[in-house]
Amino acid sequence: MSKQASSRENAVVRVEPGALRATVERIFEAAGVPQEDARVGADVLVKADLMGVESHGVSNMLERYVERYKSGVMNPRPQWRITRETPGTATVDADRGLGIMVVPKAMEIAIAKAKQVGTGMVTVGNCRHLGMAVYHAMLALEHDMIGVCMSSVRPTVLPSLGSRVRLGTNPIAVAAPAGEEPPFVFDAATSVVPDNKIDIIRRLGGDIFPGWIGDERGTPVMEPGPAPPRDGYQLLPLGGIPQTGAHKGYGLACVVDILCGGLSGSGYGAVRSADTVAHFVGAYNIEAFLDAAQFKGMMDEWLRALKATPPAPGHERVLVAGQMEWEAEQDRRANGIPLHRDVIGWFRDTCAGMGIPFTLAPPP
Amino acid sequence: MSKQASSRENAVVRVEPGALRATVERIFEAAGVPQEDARVGADVLVKADLMGVESHGVSNMLERYVERYKSGVMNPRPQWRITRETPGTATVDADRGLGIMVVPKAMEIAIAKAKQVGTGMVTVGNCRHLGMAVYHAMLALEHDMIGVCMSSVRPTVLPSLGSRVRLGTNPIAVAAPAGEEPPFVFDAATSVVPDNKIDIIRRLGGDIFPGWIGDERGTPVMEPGPAPPRDGYQLLPLGGIPQTGAHKGYGLACVVDILCGGLSGSGYGAVRSADTVAHFVGAYNIEAFLDAAQFKGMMDEWLRALKATPPAPGHERVLVAGQMEWEAEQDRRANGIPLHRDVIGWFRDTCAGMGIPFTLAPPP
Repeated sequence: MSKQASSRENAVVRVEPGALRATVERIFEAAGVPQEDARVGADVLVKADLMGVESHGVSNMLERYVERYKSGVMNPRPQWRITRETPGTATVDADRGLGIMVVPKAMEIAIAKAKQVGTGMVTVGNCRHLGMAVYHAMLALEHDMIGVCMSSVRPTVLPSLGSRVRLGTNPIAVAAPAGEEPPFVFDAATSVVPDNKIDIIRRLGGDIFPGWIGDERGTPVMEPGPAPPRDGYQLLPLGGIPQTGAHKGYGLACVVDILCGGLSGSGYGAVRSADTVAHFVGAYNIEAFLDAAQFKGMMDEWLRALKATPPAPGHERVLVAGQMEWEAEQDRRANGIPLHRDVIGWFRDTCAGMGIPFTLAPPP
Repeated sequence: MSKQASSRENAVVRVEPGALRATVERIFEAAGVPQEDARVGADVLVKADLMGVESHGVSNMLERYVERYKSGVMNPRPQWRITRETPGTATVDADRGLGIMVVPKAMEIAIAKAKQVGTGMVTVGNCRHLGMAVYHAMLALEHDMIGVCMSSVRPTVLPSLGSRVRLGTNPIAVAAPAGEEPPFVFDAATSVVPDNKIDIIRRLGGDIFPGWIGDERGTPVMEPGPAPPRDGYQLLPLGGIPQTGAHKGYGLACVVDILCGGLSGSGYGAVRSADTVAHFVGAYNIEAFLDAAQFKGMMDEWLRALKATPPAPGHERVLVAGQMEWEAEQDRRANGIPLHRDVIGWFRDTCAGMGIPFTLAPPP
C-alpha cells in the first residue's frame, strides 16, 4: 500500500448506518424540512452510502443541500402539487423542493397508477437534485414492478461535434426484480464519466483517460494527462468521439431532456435556469404483461448466465448491473459506512452549530 | 474520385419511391403475405431507404425476408394475438410473424391506450425482425405523442469484461414531435457499431476503428486494422472498454432485453432460440402531461439551440438526432432512391421467378 493510500485508509471511520440516518434526519429538520420529508431524504442519502455510491451520499451532497436551503434556492417546505393527471400519468410541480424528498412521492403516484392501468409515468418539474437516481427506481421492486428514473440536470456535456456544453450528465436508472438473485439495478450518466470523476483526480492525483473530456474548444482530449481546472474542460457524451458513437450518448441525453424537462414543462437543460432540475419516473407492473413469477424466474436464469460468462483476459469475473453495489451494501450493513474523519468533523460542527445532538462515533 | 468510388457511383440507379414500394409489396404478397401486411412491410423498408438507412432498407433486408418465408422460419400469415391486457398495456404473441408488419399494429394499440390513459406500452414476443426500429416510434408523431421502440435481437455483443457474446445490438429508438422543426428522431444500437459496419469494411476496404470490437477471447482491439472474418470478432457494447463506460452500453442493452424479452415472456437474447426476436413499443400522449403546443414550442426552441451550437474544430455543424435522415428524405423524395444495379437485377430476377410485374426502371 502506498503511503498516500495508507494515510487515506487511516483517515476513514466506520459509522453505524442507523446513527448516520438519524443524524442526517435531524440536520434536515434543523434546516426547516418537515419530519417525514427529512426521514425520506436521510434514507436516500444513506442508501447511496450503503451501496458504495459515495458521489451521491452524505459526504458529497449534504453540505450542499444545507447551503442551498440557507440561500433560499431550495424550498424546505414545498407545496408540491399535481398540475395535470390521467389514469396512467401525472405532472408534478415540485415548488422548488429537493428531489430526494419529492421524487419518492412521484414514484408512489406512478406505482399506484401502475396497479390500476399497468404502468404509471410521472414527470416532476420546478425541482432540485434527486440524489442517486436508482433509489427512486428501486421503490418499484417490492411491488413486483420495474422502476425507471431519469433526471435532466444543468449542462456540463458537449453535444457530439460541438464546442459548448448543451446537456447535463442526465442519468438513466432502471431497476428490475429477480426471484432469488439480487435485482438488476442500473444507474448511469449519459456522459462518459460524471463531473466528480475529474474533481477526484484533480484532488487525489492520477491521469484522466483518453476520451473522457473535450478541451475549451470542444476538441476531445485523446492523451492521458492531469485533470484540467474546472473551467478548462467539458465532458464528452457516452461514446466519446464521433467514431465510437458519441452521437448515441448525445441522443440518449436528449431523450432524458425530452422526458424530464419537456414533459414536465420545466424546459430543457440548455434553456432553463441553472437551479431548476426536472425528473421522470415510471413504474411497469409486471403482472400487467405476464405472470410475475415467470418473469422473475427468467431474470434469475438470465442474471446467472450473464455472471457465468467467462471473463476476458485480465478480468476476474463478469458483473451485472447493481452487483458491486449489492456487495458493498452487505459489507456496510454489517461493518458500518466508511466516512472520512473530515466528514465526521463536519457533522460534529454542523450539529453543534444547529444545536442538535451529535451521535456519530467520534474519530478516536 | 478514386477509380473504385467512381465505379461504385456509376453502379447506382435512382428509382422512384412509389414504384419501389409497389414492387416490394408484390414480392411480399407472392411470398404469401396478406395484402394489407404487404403494404405495411413495404412502407417500413422503403421508409428506411428514403431516410438513407440502407442497412434496414430493401437492398439489405428483403432477400433475407423472402428466404425466411421460404424456409418456414417466419410465418407469412401470423395469427398474432393479445395474451394479456390492461387499460395501459398489452402483451402480444406475434405467432412468428415478421416484426415490420406486426409491430406497427402493436404501436397502434399503444397509441389507442395512450389516448385513453396517458401512455400505452406493448410488448411483442415470438416475433421476427422489425426493420428500422424508429419507424414504429415515428407512428406516434402524428398523434402528438412521443414514440419509443426497442428490440432484443440475437447475441453478437460482449458484456463488459466478458469473452462471449451475451446481448444483441438491442436498439433504442425514440421519436418526439416539434412544432416547425423536423421531429427528434433517435435510433441507435447499444453496441459501439452495428454488425453490418464490419461487413461493409470487409467488403469495401478501410480499417476498423480502435474500440469497436473484441477479438475471439474478448480482448478489445485497440489498433486500427482490416476487418476480421465473421467468426473472428465480437462487438463491444457502447462505451467500448471499461475505462470509457462499457458497463453503460452493456447495462442499456440489458434494459432492452428486460423490457422486450422479459416483459413479453419470450425470454432474453442469451437464453432463447436464435430466430425469436422480442420487441417493446410505447406511446406517451403529450397532452396527458401538458399542452402539446407548449411542448412543441419548447422542442423548436431547444432543437434550434442545439443546432446553433458552435462546432468543434474540424466540424462544420452540430446535428440533432434525425436531421441527416430528414435531409436524405428530402433529396430522395425529389430525386429517387439510389439502388445498386445488382439490387435492381435481384428485383428483376425475383419478380420473374415469382411471376409478377417488374416496374422499376431497368439499368440503362
